[in-house]
Amino acid sequence: MKNLKIFLRLFILVFVVVTTKSIQAQQISNVEINEKIDSILPLLTLEEKVAMCHAQSKFSTPGIGRLGIPEIWMSDGPHGVRGEINWDDWGYADWTNDYITAFPALTCLASTFNPNLAKAYGISVGEEARYRKKDILLGPGVNIYRTPLNGRNFEYMGEDPFLASKMVVPYIKGVQQNGVAACVKHYALNNQELWRNHINVEVSDRALYEIYLPAFKAAVEEGQVWSIMGAYNQFRGQHTTHNEILMNRILKEDWAFDGVVISDWGSTHHTKEAALYGLDMEMGTGTDGLTSSTENAYDYYYLANPFLKMLKEGEIDEAVLDDKVRRILRLMYRTNMSLNRPLGRINNKEHIDVARKIASEGIVLLKNKKSFFPINPNKEITIAVIGENATKKLTIGGGSSELKAKNEISPLKGLQERFKNATIIHAMGYASGPSVYGQVIPSKLDALKLQKEAVEVASKADIVLFFGGLNKNHHQDCEGGDRESFGLPFGQDELIQELLKVNKNVGVVLVSGNAVEMPWVENVKAVMQTWYLGSEAGNAIADVISGDVNPSGKLPFSFPKKLNDNAAHSFGEVSYPGDSINQYYKEGILVGYRWHDTKNIKPLFAFGEGLSYTNFEISKIESNKKVYATHEHITISAAVSNTGNFDGAEVVQVYVGKPTSKVERAVKELKGFQKVMVKKGETKKVEISLNVKDLAFYDETISDWNLEKGEYIIYVGNASNNISKEINISIQNEY
Amino acid sequence: MKNLKIFLRLFILVFVVVTTKSIQAQQISNVEINEKIDSILPLLTLEEKVAMCHAQSKFSTPGIGRLGIPEIWMSDGPHGVRGEINWDDWGYADWTNDYITAFPALTCLASTFNPNLAKAYGISVGEEARYRKKDILLGPGVNIYRTPLNGRNFEYMGEDPFLASKMVVPYIKGVQQNGVAACVKHYALNNQELWRNHINVEVSDRALYEIYLPAFKAAVEEGQVWSIMGAYNQFRGQHTTHNEILMNRILKEDWAFDGVVISDWGSTHHTKEAALYGLDMEMGTGTDGLTSSTENAYDYYYLANPFLKMLKEGEIDEAVLDDKVRRILRLMYRTNMSLNRPLGRINNKEHIDVARKIASEGIVLLKNKKSFFPINPNKEITIAVIGENATKKLTIGGGSSELKAKNEISPLKGLQERFKNATIIHAMGYASGPSVYGQVIPSKLDALKLQKEAVEVASKADIVLFFGGLNKNHHQDCEGGDRESFGLPFGQDELIQELLKVNKNVGVVLVSGNAVEMPWVENVKAVMQTWYLGSEAGNAIADVISGDVNPSGKLPFSFPKKLNDNAAHSFGEVSYPGDSINQYYKEGILVGYRWHDTKNIKPLFAFGEGLSYTNFEISKIESNKKVYATHEHITISAAVSNTGNFDGAEVVQVYVGKPTSKVERAVKELKGFQKVMVKKGETKKVEISLNVKDLAFYDETISDWNLEKGEYIIYVGNASNNISKEINISIQNEY
Repeated sequence: MKNLKIFLRLFILVFVVVTTKSIQAQQISNVEINEKIDSILPLLTLEEKVAMCHAQSKFSTPGIGRLGIPEIWMSDGPHGVRGEINWDDWGYADWTNDYITAFPALTCLASTFNPNLAKAYGISVGEEARYRKKDILLGPGVNIYRTPLNGRNFEYMGEDPFLASKMVVPYIKGVQQNGVAACVKHYALNNQELWRNHINVEVSDRALYEIYLPAFKAAVEEGQVWSIMGAYNQFRGQHTTHNEILMNRILKEDWAFDGVVISDWGSTHHTKEAALYGLDMEMGTGTDGLTSSTENAYDYYYLANPFLKMLKEGEIDEAVLDDKVRRILRLMYRTNMSLNRPLGRINNKEHIDVARKIASEGIVLLKNKKSFFPINPNKEITIAVIGENATKKLTIGGGSSELKAKNEISPLKGLQERFKNATIIHAMGYASGPSVYGQVIPSKLDALKLQKEAVEVASKADIVLFFGGLNKNHHQDCEGGDRESFGLPFGQDELIQELLKVNKNVGVVLVSGNAVEMPWVENVKAVMQTWYLGSEAGNAIADVISGDVNPSGKLPFSFPKKLNDNAAHSFGEVSYPGDSINQYYKEGILVGYRWHDTKNIKPLFAFGEGLSYTNFEISKIESNKKVYATHEHITISAAVSNTGNFDGAEVVQVYVGKPTSKVERAVKELKGFQKVMVKKGETKKVEISLNVKDLAFYDETISDWNLEKGEYIIYVGNASNNISKEINISIQNEY
Repeated sequence: MKNLKIFLRLFILVFVVVTTKSIQAQQISNVEINEKIDSILPLLTLEEKVAMCHAQSKFSTPGIGRLGIPEIWMSDGPHGVRGEINWDDWGYADWTNDYITAFPALTCLASTFNPNLAKAYGISVGEEARYRKKDILLGPGVNIYRTPLNGRNFEYMGEDPFLASKMVVPYIKGVQQNGVAACVKHYALNNQELWRNHINVEVSDRALYEIYLPAFKAAVEEGQVWSIMGAYNQFRGQHTTHNEILMNRILKEDWAFDGVVISDWGSTHHTKEAALYGLDMEMGTGTDGLTSSTENAYDYYYLANPFLKMLKEGEIDEAVLDDKVRRILRLMYRTNMSLNRPLGRINNKEHIDVARKIASEGIVLLKNKKSFFPINPNKEITIAVIGENATKKLTIGGGSSELKAKNEISPLKGLQERFKNATIIHAMGYASGPSVYGQVIPSKLDALKLQKEAVEVASKADIVLFFGGLNKNHHQDCEGGDRESFGLPFGQDELIQELLKVNKNVGVVLVSGNAVEMPWVENVKAVMQTWYLGSEAGNAIADVISGDVNPSGKLPFSFPKKLNDNAAHSFGEVSYPGDSINQYYKEGILVGYRWHDTKNIKPLFAFGEGLSYTNFEISKIESNKKVYATHEHITISAAVSNTGNFDGAEVVQVYVGKPTSKVERAVKELKGFQKVMVKKGETKKVEISLNVKDLAFYDETISDWNLEKGEYIIYVGNASNNISKEINISIQNEY
């Protein structure tokens, strides 16, 4: 009887799939998805299932054509949908339909401290991915900013796990509402590019859980992200892409991640580890051009023929494979087999508006002596725009995040459009060479010529705006290598000093994804940190410089005065960059402002810092209670008054510290924030809710979170170094 | 008040589209589609609308990204979905996911006389197109077979408009049920490849309407095809792709075609004609490689910037453009903006089975002396398989219908698999050179060597199977050129004669899409016409040769004894190929068997002819009445008895003639057919219904169809030259 039932069930399954011609797209619940998968899985051969676990081209995995199971197509992100790449080499396919909206870099998004903009970003870039027929967008990135030398920090969301968590969740939800999977990356501890393919990271459990994992955890548990990308580096002697602790124990067991683990391109190194330690889909293992000479170069992937062989020989159980295929099918039911997913759109006004809004809201005004900014666009003055970054295309270069922007407004162009009454004169000032590996730096003679020309231009102007910083060249803000020094490259420091000799009205506009040294900071009138702003860069900069937009960005990472003031660099090469084999995160949890605060090493500019053209006063700061039980929430209320002359937005930041603890703790950690728009002369009340549970530390003695009872200090201010009020509260047992 | 209403309506439209994020895919009725289009059209700029009317790459047209209107992607057909082509040149993109099921050529499909198989063909190739993410499949082709020299006849469905009509409709419906548009081609009168880009065809209205247009009309009116492709040649001094008579008056006015007219690749020649005379979408106008040097080479298309200029200057009314865009949007709502369209599938067993079934059912047995076929696979005999077509890949070459077959079973391979008891020996016999333009024919010496080897092999065998015919090389069955002679190429006639000298048991298996001269026909034991059979070629041939399948194919065109017996060639070069400027279809309506019958010129093999391994007797042939009114149907009934030793299928063919008429009429014309499967020893009754209206001729004196009253003869048989019974009926006025 039981056998008959099984037979009938199998018969029905086969019948259903074979006679319905091809599998229909479906908009269904997770339970229904699992039922569908149950019905499909028995129809697949071992070979077909293995095929689904690895690439068929640079950016796609094979479907099962005979059953109508589609291919999966991916694109690099996270700042926009990358141009089409050739089938089996890294060249661009030279299509002309892949010009997109370039959104600001994620450092800029983080600087907005505005989760609503993260949602708008996600929706917009997701729509562009969908229109471009991509099923997975390879982003966002939430690796923690540990050192300003990391070439890839611009793709991430700063040094604070709480901020990154709050920003990554809406980004993911925005992308995924388009039926496009986000792929949060690079999991985990890929905090430098130097030796990224092999460096082994040794870090305490406490730092891992408190600093490096929270944003990934939020992406999984709150963002319900559908895929995650393994990183290149190793952790505790095992590559992170197939890592028993990170993938199996933490991601798939503790966090119950039900999506797909995708390798970074070429981050897979071992068949059995990949099979057993959590990798579901192997991408980018080098086969460049091999498909032209062998029947299928992709058969040689770790998760291809070698995997198949082990399965056939019983060395790996088929259940291991089935789990991977289930995850992949689940992702498909959420994306390319989902009914009703919208068609997406691209380069529309709304996306461009979102890009401009994020760009202008993420710009951070760091110094503004005598109200140098804003510059009144009605004035008939002469403005010297100096510096390569005033005109350089900064969506090009940088590695996988490179974009074919349909349009990229340079700062010079943006200023020319907005400052029609001014006379804008321009000089390049310095040159960095092309945005490719092995670029040629101009000769000393050429550099001097450029400098001389710039000084001459600056001498004729009422105001000098210097557009410098880093760029997307190798060894700058670029994947695949770290910066070689903390200072500005290409002779910019010297150039600024020369400019100051002929003009005292110099404002510096930095374009970078990293902190830089500023030996000239006392001598310039103003410093504005503008990030890589994408398509609307120049317009957004003009918005802020003109005062059309009042800056409200806050630094998502600390700018140390000198490199060794940074935590990672305080312990020598053992901590950064390691000895090429291993590195030890000696600073533990004291990353970024946690280090500066706790060790009392003042940064040049602090985490959370950022000026406005108006003045804000935060008052009436109160907690709703003084004593809390462990299951409760703390509500902090405050009044934000705009006492200056411009409408503007302020970010109220709530940090918490525990003065006495069984372990060393940072003086304070960000646990809440809220951005509020306040018109000049007005006052607005804000309420910020903290979960008491979030005050726990990761206790290595019990391998679990430990919510200590007792006294805590709540710090409320508008920057980590500008606290308006401290409130003492205490946590007690449940009552 | 009216203005307010209009304002509100516009506001709502804009609001709806802009706020719903992107346009949703919809499964909606034609009325709803038109309403949707009404709401979208006002949102499009003139430039966007013009952009939709021409290519952006070799096989795609641009969408309107900002509104989420998708791109349209196309693929060559009609025998399978072509491999991926580069963005802007004709090279293959070297993808590895574009290996497909190659279905038999359309001549083979026509030979089945089985509309159910046309439906299965359409469904299957449509599913493969859908899986490959194609929105339009460029096929089927229904140009009438006028001369056996036409290089492209293999892509069409023979010489009879009724047969082609009955086969094209289910093919289209099958494709389109996948949410993929069929694109019937090449409209019209593209009946030779020589000088195809400019030759002007002069043909009578009567032949146009009775012979060359009916299959297109059926495709539009019965098949409801969503797109149609203009041809290369001219008609009455105007290129057919933008032809006032063909496109405007006949297709869009008389037939009320509501789909998209697409140019053939490079068949557009004039902006104003294209704009005004019915072209909706310009493709393939030569820009090879230009996109790498100019911003957008496609802006120079006739329907791009030159069109835009005329619109802006008022030389062409915007309503002309709007009509085109409406048609394109309508096609989108039926394809890439349609909800619920299935995902498609590819290379599945069902498709391969369909390919094999069509292939085996389309094979036509022309001669079978002393039951040469079938060959019993149990016998331990020696079979010599001679001839290049026993092993040559025939899915390669031929022009745009070339395919990347996932698998192509050669005849040799098919026989080896089926005839395990036999000893199969093989020699190439002749060689044609590679399947590319300008191939090198082997030297006379090499040819003699091949011949000698083949004769030696043949001399050792019990049976010789010669696999010859044409191939997909230039000047054979291949787009872009016509055959240069009616005889078999590459010395095959001589080779066959040589084989006959050493072995009397020679059976000839011809692979071609055209009739060929057969000087050896009396000397060989058997002749089998097998077409280009696609992926399953060898299996299907083995099916028929072994007797697993009893042949039931019927010739869809006449095989004349000599070239000048063909109608088009009976009037000299003025009729074919013309003088390179003009050609005159002197034979008028007397195409194919109409010519042979009427002029009493016996063909070598006749239209509708095809043998079986069994014997059929058609008896009890009756009409339901003797006198019919013009609005009635004629029902012909008959009994088909299988009196032989094999189960088998027979095609009962019903022709009608009008002995006395005000115009010259063919002796008889096909007006009905039915294929019936009858087991040996059994009898089955068939009923075939003819519409009396279909007996009309096109009367040039009234420019309309004229249903003459009076006597008609109904001919019922199993071939145009094997009529079992004639029935006299008469048509009277309505009563």
